[in-house]
Amino acid sequence: MGSLDANSAALADDRAAPGSSFQPLNADDVRAYLHKAVDFISDYYANVESMAVLPNVKPGYLQEELKLSSPPNYSSPFEVTMKELRSAVVPGMTHWASPNFFAFFPSTNSAAAIAGDLIASAMNTVGFTWKAAPAATEMEVLALDWLAQLMRLPATFMTRSTGSEGARGTGGGVILGTTSEAMLVTLVAARDSALRRSGSNGVAGITRLTVYASDQTHSTFFKACRLAGFDPANIRSIPTGPEAHYSVSPEKLLEAMQADAEAGLVPTYVCATVGTTSSNAVDPVGAVADVAALFDAWVHVDAAYAGSACICPEFRHYLDGVERVDSISMSPHKWLLTCLDCTCLYVRDTQRLSDSLETNPEYLKNDVTDSGEVTDLKDMQVGVGRRFRGLKLWMVMRTYGTAKLQEHIRSDVAMAKMFEELVRADDRFEVVVPRNFALVCFRIKARGTMTEDDADEATRVLMENLNKTGKMYLAHTVVGGRFVLRFAVGSSLQEERHVRSSWELIKKTTSQLTD
Amino acid sequence: MGSLDANSAALADDRAAPGSSFQPLNADDVRAYLHKAVDFISDYYANVESMAVLPNVKPGYLQEELKLSSPPNYSSPFEVTMKELRSAVVPGMTHWASPNFFAFFPSTNSAAAIAGDLIASAMNTVGFTWKAAPAATEMEVLALDWLAQLMRLPATFMTRSTGSEGARGTGGGVILGTTSEAMLVTLVAARDSALRRSGSNGVAGITRLTVYASDQTHSTFFKACRLAGFDPANIRSIPTGPEAHYSVSPEKLLEAMQADAEAGLVPTYVCATVGTTSSNAVDPVGAVADVAALFDAWVHVDAAYAGSACICPEFRHYLDGVERVDSISMSPHKWLLTCLDCTCLYVRDTQRLSDSLETNPEYLKNDVTDSGEVTDLKDMQVGVGRRFRGLKLWMVMRTYGTAKLQEHIRSDVAMAKMFEELVRADDRFEVVVPRNFALVCFRIKARGTMTEDDADEATRVLMENLNKTGKMYLAHTVVGGRFVLRFAVGSSLQEERHVRSSWELIKKTTSQLTD
Repeated sequence: MGSLDANSAALADDRAAPGSSFQPLNADDVRAYLHKAVDFISDYYANVESMAVLPNVKPGYLQEELKLSSPPNYSSPFEVTMKELRSAVVPGMTHWASPNFFAFFPSTNSAAAIAGDLIASAMNTVGFTWKAAPAATEMEVLALDWLAQLMRLPATFMTRSTGSEGARGTGGGVILGTTSEAMLVTLVAARDSALRRSGSNGVAGITRLTVYASDQTHSTFFKACRLAGFDPANIRSIPTGPEAHYSVSPEKLLEAMQADAEAGLVPTYVCATVGTTSSNAVDPVGAVADVAALFDAWVHVDAAYAGSACICPEFRHYLDGVERVDSISMSPHKWLLTCLDCTCLYVRDTQRLSDSLETNPEYLKNDVTDSGEVTDLKDMQVGVGRRFRGLKLWMVMRTYGTAKLQEHIRSDVAMAKMFEELVRADDRFEVVVPRNFALVCFRIKARGTMTEDDADEATRVLMENLNKTGKMYLAHTVVGGRFVLRFAVGSSLQEERHVRSSWELIKKTTSQLTD
Repeated sequence: MGSLDANSAALADDRAAPGSSFQPLNADDVRAYLHKAVDFISDYYANVESMAVLPNVKPGYLQEELKLSSPPNYSSPFEVTMKELRSAVVPGMTHWASPNFFAFFPSTNSAAAIAGDLIASAMNTVGFTWKAAPAATEMEVLALDWLAQLMRLPATFMTRSTGSEGARGTGGGVILGTTSEAMLVTLVAARDSALRRSGSNGVAGITRLTVYASDQTHSTFFKACRLAGFDPANIRSIPTGPEAHYSVSPEKLLEAMQADAEAGLVPTYVCATVGTTSSNAVDPVGAVADVAALFDAWVHVDAAYAGSACICPEFRHYLDGVERVDSISMSPHKWLLTCLDCTCLYVRDTQRLSDSLETNPEYLKNDVTDSGEVTDLKDMQVGVGRRFRGLKLWMVMRTYGTAKLQEHIRSDVAMAKMFEELVRADDRFEVVVPRNFALVCFRIKARGTMTEDDADEATRVLMENLNKTGKMYLAHTVVGGRFVLRFAVGSSLQEERHVRSSWELIKKTTSQLTD
């Protein structure tokens, strides 16, 4: 850029461009490209309902569509890029934004969140320390405190108390990318604390540390444990069953921890889940905390999905006892209208996290950090660099307000309840576990000469046939050894009519199957 | 939404809204909010040059500005949110997008990248498996292969070879959030492999595993080692010095690894850096790989910043020997015009990663994964969920093309070279290490009665005075025990005039200091 003189010719290559006129943030381009992208998005939302939710493409399709196997040498008008996006990328998408998407958990979204994420991308701050991004750091803290208030978390998890004194407690939060990261950093903090407590020489004692979760806990917990170096043989998976709707039994947890302690092992960490991925089971948070306290073990609550529901008073009881746990994480990118990625981790004592995660290289040292008045959020996460994720979360709460957010949760729950009742009223199906939130787990019921295995197979074929239509997408799980369909309501464009038409399709496809 | 009937009254709370009309992705709102955000961004870029780069705010300022200590109950027009963004957030930003920003490394950006990130936010896919997001998975693979070609990485790091056969090799890539994650996942893979190799019973052998990096390596490496459970006592920091411009000595590395092996320890992992954060030192990749090979240790190359420069032939030699390493990561969010977060990790054998990182819960099982024809990218990263990050990276390469991207790197380097020459021509300063890329490390020179300590202090005061003006922001490091200023060229709005005016300010402020 500008007009560097002949000195620049010293650069080795004759394509050197000392008088470069390339301006990647040229004001006209920024405005034009982004307005084009916005129009694309508006059109996409308007049309996504009519697109096949699951695309009909084969592995390797994109390379064939796009032709170019190498990056182009020369620039093209942005319209060319957008054209390829429309013609090659969109037809190969699994449309999570489709109102006919009922798989996994919905990745809910909103105009305010997308706007916030867009502005964060443009400002592109790297907020490792307060000084490197004061507004981004403070906004993250503020948004986390607001969300904590929405969920009625105890003040011990907030950075600033809501009272008049404004004093900092020991607790606080941080926005991470995924629940896995929340598990990893708390596991590491608990691990280091247990090593110190048990007088380990360095990490030698790690072979004695044990961790606990129910067999319904998300598989990423076991991965996070392995990442943190726990011995796979020391990861206890507590069996659950239909009698307690697949929530963990405090008695069985106590037994397991007791047996380990008696064997000279060190119970270190318990993960309780509020709303498991498989069937939305809810572990009893308070009872788990009471058991863990006997062993001084860290308790983490994974409320990735259902934490959002707890902003409604009628669901808040699922978090009862949270005042006695060490940490809780929940993901607004699942059910609180905030696009990926946004996982909120709250800990009761931030010092325990930063003891394990703090780095203090010379190039990040600064007067504000030295003053001790601020928390540098890099010390509560895996890495150092970080996006301005607090902005979108704040924008969602600021724009929509508590009442609308509660209305959003209740509307999804009401639609799921309606669907559940439709399923229950049809004697070809059974609802496998009681619905707690907006997920309905159901399957074809074994009737007459049909064995349970036959019902499994029929349910599997039903799913495949449904998904092949392109008119809906739902995924499965296995609960109590049985193949079960997961109907997760809540995609942000979803309305009651989509739930009803999906139910009609399920009924029709089932009839074709059993006729 | 819709018109749920009286059944919904069964919900506990009288604020339940069965006939909800709240549409968070209402087409009109999406269009209106995003166009407002785009206009904000255009205005921001137009004006950021005149804003103080470092804001003059105190810890806690945002809460005071925004008044609301709790989330509002009711919704507000989006304009209210945007007004608070303008009035309260912007004045508290450290403006990484400012052309007067010279601190840390620039977080470069472009219109195409922001548009790509925006579309990813709107589509909001969760691409854990190929089936959950075919286009997102394939686009990520394609963008990584393109970038590998730009850097002339050997075909062993690519998912699809560039030849006609199109066969899959053992290598491949994945886009992660940060370099720390790239280090963590490769450390864990190397750890597990070394444990198996050394016949460890579970993780018992972890106390014998050792890892190596120069004392100039980013602090996040040591953090990643601790996250992965390596014993802090087994993390070897190889001393460097001015004689090799702070690059690691293969001889010293060999000595350290040899001594450990002789002591019965297991050399497991070496991290080499191409372009250290402190001073842009370059470790000799090939020589490090040769040493590590003697011990069967994993070699990772951290080219977070300087990897982008290697798309220019004249800088590619810094990666010589990369065909013999196990993994390399580089971050387009640093210097390749792609907004946060985007770190590209390439590994020679993806199986070694997925052996440690694979999860296979029932609810993610599907026919395409079972076919073995695809890589599910969740098995190469910390967590499970993942944004559609490949889109922005592809959009940058597709829109601008190789020549413009090279021009961008060369323009930054040329400006840094110009600045370096200005500094060298002023005998009040010294350039502390030779400039390799677009970072100039300099300080006030000890002259006359001024001791080196005096020069350190004068340099520190110079930095503080410069940063206080709001007219520029630069950060410091310590090299060879001396306080050094880091002048990092490359913020995407930067032109030669900004470099020149910053130099004038430095000269003037130095004169005031020494007068």
